[in-house]
Amino acid sequence: MSLLVIGTLAYDTVETMHTRRADVLGGSAMYFSIAAGQFVPVQLVAVVGKDFRPQDIELLKASRVDVSGVEHAEGRTFRWSGRYESDWNTRHTLETQLNVFERFDPKVPAAMRAANWVFLANAAPRVQMRALEQVTKPKFTVVDTMNLWIDTARADLLQLLRKVDAVVLNDEEARMLTGERNLIKAAGSVLGLGPRYVILKKGEHGAFLLGNDVHFSLPAYPIDEVVDPTGAGDSFAGGFMGYIAEKGNVRPETLRAAMLYGTVSASWCVQGFGVEALSGRTRADIDGRFDELRTICTIG
Amino acid sequence: MSLLVIGTLAYDTVETMHTRRADVLGGSAMYFSIAAGQFVPVQLVAVVGKDFRPQDIELLKASRVDVSGVEHAEGRTFRWSGRYESDWNTRHTLETQLNVFERFDPKVPAAMRAANWVFLANAAPRVQMRALEQVTKPKFTVVDTMNLWIDTARADLLQLLRKVDAVVLNDEEARMLTGERNLIKAAGSVLGLGPRYVILKKGEHGAFLLGNDVHFSLPAYPIDEVVDPTGAGDSFAGGFMGYIAEKGNVRPETLRAAMLYGTVSASWCVQGFGVEALSGRTRADIDGRFDELRTICTIG
Repeated sequence: MSLLVIGTLAYDTVETMHTRRADVLGGSAMYFSIAAGQFVPVQLVAVVGKDFRPQDIELLKASRVDVSGVEHAEGRTFRWSGRYESDWNTRHTLETQLNVFERFDPKVPAAMRAANWVFLANAAPRVQMRALEQVTKPKFTVVDTMNLWIDTARADLLQLLRKVDAVVLNDEEARMLTGERNLIKAAGSVLGLGPRYVILKKGEHGAFLLGNDVHFSLPAYPIDEVVDPTGAGDSFAGGFMGYIAEKGNVRPETLRAAMLYGTVSASWCVQGFGVEALSGRTRADIDGRFDELRTICTIG
Repeated sequence: MSLLVIGTLAYDTVETMHTRRADVLGGSAMYFSIAAGQFVPVQLVAVVGKDFRPQDIELLKASRVDVSGVEHAEGRTFRWSGRYESDWNTRHTLETQLNVFERFDPKVPAAMRAANWVFLANAAPRVQMRALEQVTKPKFTVVDTMNLWIDTARADLLQLLRKVDAVVLNDEEARMLTGERNLIKAAGSVLGLGPRYVILKKGEHGAFLLGNDVHFSLPAYPIDEVVDPTGAGDSFAGGFMGYIAEKGNVRPETLRAAMLYGTVSASWCVQGFGVEALSGRTRADIDGRFDELRTICTIG
């Protein structure tokens, strides 16, 4: 039931309409690991710079994350800064400093190569492929991507999509990747590119899962006050994969429940900056919100 | 189980990115009546001009709609024309000709005043109130409105909201009415204005129902090809109220199922211009789509 993630650890600067926070602990693999670690132990492959704070490594360890695959390289940690408009859906990237991530050549430690469950968090498709090639026999691999790679590394991405079981996309990415405006058609087209499943995230409008044996749609967990939506998608993936790894199968009923757990993890994420609100959640917190969400969605 | 609707019958001119259609049979009460008539007989109070086509009255009759409350006035029928942008969510009103609707003073025929289930389709709140006052003892009254009235007749609308059981709003209207950006908060604020229930429609993103004894959220029925979204909200209301009138109660389980039926009626509506695709649906068509939607939404 070992769960492996390859992605970024970062310090983000986030501006919302209410406030601005600098050097917030973040990165795709950070959010994923914290969320997934609430279900099963997580194995993490990433790179940080000399400026990465020791207490942030400690936080990962305390969250059941094996950090022996985290490389400490010369230079500064990956940095991203962005600003959200008042509707939360529009995000402007103000600056991206790849720093140590620029030359990241992921090395999956020998002890992690037998991982069953693999999440390739957002990174250059070439880097994701390099990581995946080192895993000997994954049972279920999920990949995330972003508009930048769809635009600039489409051939690499298409090659990668033929090697994975599922892809998580937001609405904009699904449209960019397929040229289809209609999300159901877009999701169908994505299945034609290789993956057996596509998870389409629509932020506050929920998410749906499409595969040959399953079509499941659900709304978002209702949140009164969004503090910072950064990392919501990665937290979703963390809850989703964490639950799948815990159950040890990808049967349709597991995938459906995993969609709810992903939604719950994302809901905690957006209630704080970075992993502040997500981190430290107990399984009782998570299951409580799962039950609430199930109630809201149950037809009767 | 008598279901009464007061609203508009209209001829619309609709421009989509694909085509333009003039004099399409429409109006809030038209969509509502056709959708609701697939569940129970409908009593309709409306006004048309001398130009209203006899075959359109025949269509209503054939759809189980009692048209004895339709007034035939001097002048032309209400006309609306609008254009949809490619995302379908942005609609530009090009022209509104109130025509006979301008002086509409709704007269509910004596035989219809004992209606149990009442839908006040979109109209000036003062007109809606005039109609409601003539109904002797409604069991469940639902009101629809639009940005125009929230803007220009807020006091009348607030007064009306204290007299009804439920209100249907789209996301933009809920935000305008309450000043709350967050839809859950907005829905909560609407309940503070009087209604026991608020139905919040989010177009392709589904809808939710909030009340003291129920909170239910569901995605839209997935549609490959939208032809014309005009009337989707009124068709939703028609399926919703039609099912409630058929069941004869507003228990939480009835309301939840009614949300699915509303979603199904809206899904048929958007697949054709005017009521072309909605009209003529059999109960088997409707229940088939209801079952599909239930499958997509069922957690397991």
